[in-house]
Amino acid sequence: MEFDNVMDCIFCKIIEGELPCHKIYEDKRIIAFLDINPINKGHLLVVPKEHHLNILDTPIDLLKDMIAVVQKMAFLVIEAVGAKGFNLSVSNGKEAGQMVDHLHFHIIPRFTRDNLHLWSGKALSDDEMKHVAENIKKMMTQ
Amino acid sequence: MEFDNVMDCIFCKIIEGELPCHKIYEDKRIIAFLDINPINKGHLLVVPKEHHLNILDTPIDLLKDMIAVVQKMAFLVIEAVGAKGFNLSVSNGKEAGQMVDHLHFHIIPRFTRDNLHLWSGKALSDDEMKHVAENIKKMMTQ
Repeated sequence: MEFDNVMDCIFCKIIEGELPCHKIYEDKRIIAFLDINPINKGHLLVVPKEHHLNILDTPIDLLKDMIAVVQKMAFLVIEAVGAKGFNLSVSNGKEAGQMVDHLHFHIIPRFTRDNLHLWSGKALSDDEMKHVAENIKKMMTQ
Repeated sequence: MEFDNVMDCIFCKIIEGELPCHKIYEDKRIIAFLDINPINKGHLLVVPKEHHLNILDTPIDLLKDMIAVVQKMAFLVIEAVGAKGFNLSVSNGKEAGQMVDHLHFHIIPRFTRDNLHLWSGKALSDDEMKHVAENIKKMMTQ
């Protein structure tokens, strides 16, 4: 195969056909299949065939191909399951809740009153915001 | 201006400089600024200057530029705030929790024991999964 296969990576095994999946889409670099533990009906994963851990270590041209597939798949899934919208969600790192160490974009269809709630934020003082912004901007110049 | 400004769109006003923001990054088509109600320290929004509602109605070349900026910004933010990872999150549609009707990608830095929990899924029967997969695949051939 052209792509890297990492032993014991469950997504690499799915890509190699060693484990089954409900495949929706496949091209040279990308595969999309149903999440085995869906949050809502039609919950889909868009996954690169090459093994990359997360967004940070994935070549930018591959990320660009992935976001194009996400758009294409989101149209289909919403229509197919009669959803009203969708969340795109990517967990990068164990602390972010990443369960499989192979990059995957979640497309989660949403329905009226499906009882899923996003995290809520809280206002910071303007000084705190300035401090954070300055710290980030400092990194850009290093 | 080259981009569409939609009256009463709070992000269009920020882009036009009519409302303040803690700006981190800007190029010809994209701006990134701190979320005014951060979920965690360094919570950043990556926003196209053109007014588009969500991923579905955004030109693919612009989405590709956006995902490249997301990668670039995620590196900076994680380093700047000492995060361990991040969630990328995009809400598409009111039912998905979208609060501002102008596409925005959330970069949410994550820390050890920050008490944020992702939605949990539940297993469906193989027949249910097959049914969903078939419905989506039918849409592709229409």
